[in-house]
Amino acid sequence: MNELTINLKPHDKIPMYEQIYSYIKNDIQGGRIAYGEKLPSTRALSRHLEVSRSTVELAYEQLLSEGYIESEPYRGFFAAKIEGLYHLPKVRARLPEKEAQKEEYQYDFTPNGVDLGSFPYHVWRKLSKDILMDDRTELFKSGDAQGEYSFRNAICSYLHQARGVNCTPEQIIIGAGSDYILMLLSTILGRGYRIAFEDPAYKQAYRVMESLAYETVPISLDQSGMCVGELEQSGADIAYVTPSHQYPTGIVMPMRRRMELLMWADKREDRYIIEDDYDSEFRYKGKPIPALQGYDAGGRVIYLGTFSRSVAPAIRLSYMVLPGPLLAKYQEKVKFISSTVSKVDQMIVQRFIEEGYYERHLNKTRALYKSRHDTMLEALRPLLAVCEVFGENAGVHLLLRFHAGVSEDELIRRAKECKIKVYGLSDYRVRRREGERATVLLGYANLSGEQIKEAVKQLTQCWGRITEQTE
Amino acid sequence: MNELTINLKPHDKIPMYEQIYSYIKNDIQGGRIAYGEKLPSTRALSRHLEVSRSTVELAYEQLLSEGYIESEPYRGFFAAKIEGLYHLPKVRARLPEKEAQKEEYQYDFTPNGVDLGSFPYHVWRKLSKDILMDDRTELFKSGDAQGEYSFRNAICSYLHQARGVNCTPEQIIIGAGSDYILMLLSTILGRGYRIAFEDPAYKQAYRVMESLAYETVPISLDQSGMCVGELEQSGADIAYVTPSHQYPTGIVMPMRRRMELLMWADKREDRYIIEDDYDSEFRYKGKPIPALQGYDAGGRVIYLGTFSRSVAPAIRLSYMVLPGPLLAKYQEKVKFISSTVSKVDQMIVQRFIEEGYYERHLNKTRALYKSRHDTMLEALRPLLAVCEVFGENAGVHLLLRFHAGVSEDELIRRAKECKIKVYGLSDYRVRRREGERATVLLGYANLSGEQIKEAVKQLTQCWGRITEQTE
Repeated sequence: MNELTINLKPHDKIPMYEQIYSYIKNDIQGGRIAYGEKLPSTRALSRHLEVSRSTVELAYEQLLSEGYIESEPYRGFFAAKIEGLYHLPKVRARLPEKEAQKEEYQYDFTPNGVDLGSFPYHVWRKLSKDILMDDRTELFKSGDAQGEYSFRNAICSYLHQARGVNCTPEQIIIGAGSDYILMLLSTILGRGYRIAFEDPAYKQAYRVMESLAYETVPISLDQSGMCVGELEQSGADIAYVTPSHQYPTGIVMPMRRRMELLMWADKREDRYIIEDDYDSEFRYKGKPIPALQGYDAGGRVIYLGTFSRSVAPAIRLSYMVLPGPLLAKYQEKVKFISSTVSKVDQMIVQRFIEEGYYERHLNKTRALYKSRHDTMLEALRPLLAVCEVFGENAGVHLLLRFHAGVSEDELIRRAKECKIKVYGLSDYRVRRREGERATVLLGYANLSGEQIKEAVKQLTQCWGRITEQTE
Repeated sequence: MNELTINLKPHDKIPMYEQIYSYIKNDIQGGRIAYGEKLPSTRALSRHLEVSRSTVELAYEQLLSEGYIESEPYRGFFAAKIEGLYHLPKVRARLPEKEAQKEEYQYDFTPNGVDLGSFPYHVWRKLSKDILMDDRTELFKSGDAQGEYSFRNAICSYLHQARGVNCTPEQIIIGAGSDYILMLLSTILGRGYRIAFEDPAYKQAYRVMESLAYETVPISLDQSGMCVGELEQSGADIAYVTPSHQYPTGIVMPMRRRMELLMWADKREDRYIIEDDYDSEFRYKGKPIPALQGYDAGGRVIYLGTFSRSVAPAIRLSYMVLPGPLLAKYQEKVKFISSTVSKVDQMIVQRFIEEGYYERHLNKTRALYKSRHDTMLEALRPLLAVCEVFGENAGVHLLLRFHAGVSEDELIRRAKECKIKVYGLSDYRVRRREGERATVLLGYANLSGEQIKEAVKQLTQCWGRITEQTE
């Protein structure tokens, strides 16, 4: 072969060398240039195409580097064998077999919402860009299995200052989301534990532990949270609790109960408390209560935290703080398991904390949620004739407990008729209870003040009617 | 309070409104402005500081949004209660308690290397930037537990074209790294399986399965890979195999053995084959052999793949393709477990595949590794008097089997004296074997051609001497 007539487009946004490269690549892939066939010299082709020689050289270099052509000293360039080369035609878009049926709601009072409008996109973009600029190979080498040390140090410092957690970076293990953290914890603990859950509970953790084949046992709550007497009776080895803001009832565990819980754990060697500090970030009245972990002298508390809630759900970044005995087990048994979080993501969040963005973001979302919380309480006033409100002043949802004679299902069904989604407390129960008063959760994190007012107004109308009927 | 004398720096890179914001914030945090104290009006402060009123308004807005001040209609702005506000002083850098002692090697023939120099940084940066620009809230909402559908579709298309894998996107589950994928798989399978591993084996997977409390059993290899007769005798339910390129021996499993393995699996309802297609991407001779999965009619093969090897170790992105029966179990039992990979990372890799970058990257690294492979074989010639080479033409390492009378430990020790790190095959064995000929692995992915030549020259010298002594 001596000629390649390529229809070059000099004003195209694809550079000239790339056009030459693609043309020859396609010809080799399509068999129009056969294995072993000689290509024109760079000088000849550049003259023929009326482009500079360096343009052709660039194209040939690209083809060489990807294995489409081979260079033989003093002889020139030849088409290579392509049977081992990757040729991946365009991906055809495909739709899921069954498109999930979306239920049509106008307002969704989900208790797991996050206000994504206040996510600091520009900061995220800037940090992400800076990090990909600064580092290069270091960033793409495999990292520390526990998470990068400097990132763990930043978390440690945050936990100490904001949550009163008492730990060193050595005790922190980073993982891609809270479900994964529990899976990893189970490899450290091993089998054979009986785990006590609050009832009603944070069901996701309950289900993860069940799927990991642990025996679970539900424990009732009183005004102070998990009943320690019942826990003692249950034969459980591990208590899974949410002391800063019980999920879903909103109970803040008082100091006395915290101490009882720690005493329970200290009674036997193999007892642990899993403290899930899930949405401790949002508290609207008084000082935040320090974490249970901060009072743990015996090395019994496993502390869990996450950025998925306080930053954004798509940020797959949670962590646990292991007490001494479990840290030793981790080092010995599962330290070899690779980290599940990319270094880039770790560095973005590290700088987010270190450069003060996290402080600002927390205060901003806290102020925002507080205002929605206040709007909600105000809007709910007309309903106080038929229910009482609890779980206020923290988190991102409230609970309404209705007077006797109203059923939860009916409340949810009526709300649905108004295209409003509300959540029944019984969904969070491990044990079904008969004869309990209907209780509904209303989350406000992803509704604006105006939406809250309008939605609650509609709820008041549709629920007002049920309660009249039942009276 | 009526005056705030702030020493503004008009030419600073920090904007004026930000300087005012920080000054007032610090005064409130430090108690110099007490709770309830009135702030100057925006008009008064702008006149006093000689800045525009909108600058002061911007600063006040920021303070309001973060909860430091409150606005009262017709009365003005007042310092808020700050006890609930986050104040996170600067993170103090800390060094790890024990800095890992780095052994000083000049050359490291690790079989797990990746050439990070060829990582397409600019493409990664561009894709990452584009994605953070395009989408906004959608990107930070929690995603599909299995991984985004469009991303699974792109992987499905790649697997079909490049690996002959026969699946739909519905069968693919994305996860943060291969260790995690195995942990997730174990929640789908449940307890009670006996898992057969090749011996020598890919130890990481072996250790993960052991840490998940599975019973494991080692199976010998012959020229064709795992011995199916021994597998049948072992009482195993699951066979973990690396047919495209056995790790670490480099055996490519021939079609006949693949069929025997599939027949073994088909004999009983609850038997499965885990096909780890770990570094199938790199093959330097002939056409790539399609995956075992492509021949599986009975729904017995669980296919594992990863981008950590073919793109970069820090990309925590692996996947599995589940056969029908296990997909049903997944849907039923563990579908609720959240994805461990952020949407941003999924979208970057998706576009990397769809826009042709992955094809180019694979061909480029393949050409690069092939040239290192060839250089290595050439450089090893003088050693052929004392050893034989095997495992060539695929993967990123070779093996040297030495003549009788030389010990593996001695070879490794001597290499270490020359500051060269090599790896003994016995590290990959599940069962220690006595009297086996010394075998050493030499990986070449992260050494340049020149480095390979120099390091092998030094090895030839130091090993030549041992073998002389032992003869």
